[in-house]
Amino acid sequence: MFVMAFQKVQQLKRIILDNLLVNLVMFRSLETLIEAHKDVGREVYLDLENSSPIPSDIVEAMIPYFSEKAYGNPTITHKLGWMAYEEIQKASESVADYIGANSIEEINFTPSETESNNLALIGTALANRKKGNKIVVSEIEPLSIKFSTKMLEKRGFEVEKIPVDRNGFVNLEKLTKAIDQKTTLVSVMLVNHEIGTVEPIKDAVEIAKKKNPDVLFHSDASDAYGRIPVNVDELGVDLLTLSSYKILGPRGVGVLYVKEGVDVERLLEGQIGTQKLWPGVENVPLIVGFQKASELAFRDFEGSVSRMKKLRNRLKSGILERISGAVLNGPSGEKRAPDNVNISIPHCEGESLTIELSLKGVYVSSGSACTRAILQPSHVLTAIGKKFEAAHGSVLMKVTRYHTNKDIEYVLDAFPKAVKRLRMISPIKDGAD
Amino acid sequence: MFVMAFQKVQQLKRIILDNLLVNLVMFRSLETLIEAHKDVGREVYLDLENSSPIPSDIVEAMIPYFSEKAYGNPTITHKLGWMAYEEIQKASESVADYIGANSIEEINFTPSETESNNLALIGTALANRKKGNKIVVSEIEPLSIKFSTKMLEKRGFEVEKIPVDRNGFVNLEKLTKAIDQKTTLVSVMLVNHEIGTVEPIKDAVEIAKKKNPDVLFHSDASDAYGRIPVNVDELGVDLLTLSSYKILGPRGVGVLYVKEGVDVERLLEGQIGTQKLWPGVENVPLIVGFQKASELAFRDFEGSVSRMKKLRNRLKSGILERISGAVLNGPSGEKRAPDNVNISIPHCEGESLTIELSLKGVYVSSGSACTRAILQPSHVLTAIGKKFEAAHGSVLMKVTRYHTNKDIEYVLDAFPKAVKRLRMISPIKDGAD
Repeated sequence: MFVMAFQKVQQLKRIILDNLLVNLVMFRSLETLIEAHKDVGREVYLDLENSSPIPSDIVEAMIPYFSEKAYGNPTITHKLGWMAYEEIQKASESVADYIGANSIEEINFTPSETESNNLALIGTALANRKKGNKIVVSEIEPLSIKFSTKMLEKRGFEVEKIPVDRNGFVNLEKLTKAIDQKTTLVSVMLVNHEIGTVEPIKDAVEIAKKKNPDVLFHSDASDAYGRIPVNVDELGVDLLTLSSYKILGPRGVGVLYVKEGVDVERLLEGQIGTQKLWPGVENVPLIVGFQKASELAFRDFEGSVSRMKKLRNRLKSGILERISGAVLNGPSGEKRAPDNVNISIPHCEGESLTIELSLKGVYVSSGSACTRAILQPSHVLTAIGKKFEAAHGSVLMKVTRYHTNKDIEYVLDAFPKAVKRLRMISPIKDGAD
Repeated sequence: MFVMAFQKVQQLKRIILDNLLVNLVMFRSLETLIEAHKDVGREVYLDLENSSPIPSDIVEAMIPYFSEKAYGNPTITHKLGWMAYEEIQKASESVADYIGANSIEEINFTPSETESNNLALIGTALANRKKGNKIVVSEIEPLSIKFSTKMLEKRGFEVEKIPVDRNGFVNLEKLTKAIDQKTTLVSVMLVNHEIGTVEPIKDAVEIAKKKNPDVLFHSDASDAYGRIPVNVDELGVDLLTLSSYKILGPRGVGVLYVKEGVDVERLLEGQIGTQKLWPGVENVPLIVGFQKASELAFRDFEGSVSRMKKLRNRLKSGILERISGAVLNGPSGEKRAPDNVNISIPHCEGESLTIELSLKGVYVSSGSACTRAILQPSHVLTAIGKKFEAAHGSVLMKVTRYHTNKDIEYVLDAFPKAVKRLRMISPIKDGAD
């Protein structure tokens, strides 16, 4: 069944891409394909899941740190080192403050969310191996968690995955059942990166610790930070991941909050700087950029969130109204992150739609980020019960406080045209207009 | 003996630092300490071992990539993703070209030299475990190699360390003896990061492969790239590490060259992008910065090297002439990297000297980078037979093509004054002037 669906989608995709290529016959290289965008009426970047353009005040905040100030290694005793040390302390203090950590010792900078999640899963599991070898995670964690549990399985750990309901909420009953005396670590994200589900982490932590007081709880809050309140004390978590680019900061910075007293093993070795869990020279300019991004996200937090919600609601409703058969993936209302839109478009292959929309200046991604090499549907969408085709025909968009109503109107104009054209050349018409 | 020497140095250091602090009584915080630099006549940054200021044309090359172009994720099918993909391809092609790799598939971007070295050691050892469990490295590898071998020992590998002579050249006879049929990997750096020794890698590879044709050879070339010719084919290596900041590029980019057909296991898991050995979203602006840094380093390679040598020789001779008892660590002549100066100053604690020099606007490091928390001498200097005190009283400096004669003259004026003052307050005077 799976294989058949897979083949069907592949066939569909080939036909559509072939057809697109007929239209793009002049694009013999990526360069000419990029050039074909030069006459677009407007450019609206909504692929915040996979990367972000950095607002100019954040870029400007970073620039002096490349070559004018604090460009030293923060462990070295000279002016440039001391300046770097101060910047890292300041950034640690500010992030500790934003998430309610008790001290800057609990803040660990890493190269990204990926490294933070690997450290949280593998590093914590290894450091607490003597207490037990069972790890519990949800079915819809990001790939850096999903795949690091595979690494743990290879090293003798038992991993149980907790299913979610059709809106992506983790099944707390099954979570309770899964936790036993040899469970050392539970990891459930605070906001799902694809469908925006705000998970009941506070409840999950309570349940988990009631069942086994020694259990450690990690949550990837990359898609929550700057969008919903994130307070480690209130949530009760022991470890928490943040990502710089997910709040419009530069790529190259992640954070792993580790509560005082929690043991985590380093995954790599090298020169130890000010960050005890990740070796190497700290990236001061990028950490400064992340700090600036946090500052801007929290300067008028409620105003920004309300702005995101309005733009998001207009985008979501606009597409659902204009595209027949379109279905929102994930929950509605307060339990959905304010920036997230994820919609399945029947009879429309997702990756082809990203190309078609790109040629109109609208940048989105299809389901979760696939690589060029691998065609597989989002594990999040299949976990919430979407069929293979629906998962493939999905589009993921996130708005920021920098988007405008005009941006959204432009997308709402371009979107139906792109879908119409793709449906025209699609070999499958049953039920679609 | 070691403990006694350690205590002696600690005591010495405390006395000197206390004395310095008397003079720095107004510096109640790092901030005021930093302010105390405002009247320095000139600033000369020579601590290129631990970080670097980035030349403005490299910063300018990066800036557009933060928010104007190619800010997408290179695996996503829209304009910004395609642009990012193209930039990464171009950067891979250029580095492949500079080091003589056969294809861009052999170039892997990582977050830094630290990650590249961990991947080279641990990833290669694990992937080739079935062939054998012995790893051979030199005594003077950087900490990211030295410490990752400890991780391998914990996982059941046998690690043999090959000694070096008093100039840091690896003992090829002992290297030959160490390699047996269960040896899968040898790692010897091309240029030592502390004492500039250019190791006989071509000979070492020949010897190693003659003894066991299946052995893989890794070399950390971070301090060689841009300073001496580096060609993977001529050297015969299977894996090679490069670092962006070591050639004045931004921190946050390393390269691991892996010859086609060589198996390396990933150390972390997550979303796989265009870099098969390191998960996560590629850092396009920083990779562009690294490419620019390479371009500038190779634009007039011979001119730059000759300039570095002249400046370095003036700096080295000037200090040796002016400071009684000062001794160059590492070799002289063509077998020393053109940028490196490492000098032991008797009766002068190294870290105190970095502070004293800093207050005159001269930024250097003491031996290898120590952390604030750990006082231990450089393992490189102890490996070449330096006594504990001499290793502690050493200063490491590197010049770049951007330094000027005036910079060097300024350093040569400041240096003896700093040493004189420290020696005045030092409790140990025997033999020193």
